[in-house]
Amino acid sequence: MRRFGQAALLKPDMIAEYDTLHAMVWLKVLDMITACNIRNYSIFRQGDLLFAYFEYNGDDYEGDMQKMADDPVTQEWWKRTKPCFAGHAIGEYYTDMQEIFHHE
Amino acid sequence: MRRFGQAALLKPDMIAEYDTLHAMVWLKVLDMITACNIRNYSIFRQGDLLFAYFEYNGDDYEGDMQKMADDPVTQEWWKRTKPCFAGHAIGEYYTDMQEIFHHE
Repeated sequence: MRRFGQAALLKPDMIAEYDTLHAMVWLKVLDMITACNIRNYSIFRQGDLLFAYFEYNGDDYEGDMQKMADDPVTQEWWKRTKPCFAGHAIGEYYTDMQEIFHHE
Repeated sequence: MRRFGQAALLKPDMIAEYDTLHAMVWLKVLDMITACNIRNYSIFRQGDLLFAYFEYNGDDYEGDMQKMADDPVTQEWWKRTKPCFAGHAIGEYYTDMQEIFHHE
């Protein structure tokens, strides 16, 4: 199992939109997340700062991420979520962070 | 079980120190984390931005946090780690974020 931590920044005027989208997330988006072997996926927000945590329990992360990117429903979802992000030093979108500590 | 996401910022000249401390974390600090009902605890870093994720499976979070704060070894540990943090809009130290999404 691999753990991922990712940071991102929202446009200040898109914070409410991003919260609302995730409060009403589409079932087929969740099904695709599960199908791509992602588990225990949480997104936290403080102001415009986002942090995502998830665990990957498959054996082909790049392949599963491509499968997700090829899914038409996920593409529709991203059409709505990606405009919420601010281009910034952290990155255009969710950017992997380095795990420096773990304790079970 | 409650999930926590917390953000913090390091002083730029203390990033390496913070990484090193966590790479050589003291066993008694880990034992106290476990004794305080914290599980699956990870810290991620990107530049000076820290994100901590953990799960709490006890029934008295404030009491357990007080127990940790009262532990002499943890106090020694914090004497070394807390000077690494930058005062900032995010907060002086790890600050709880809001969970806006979760998928098992």
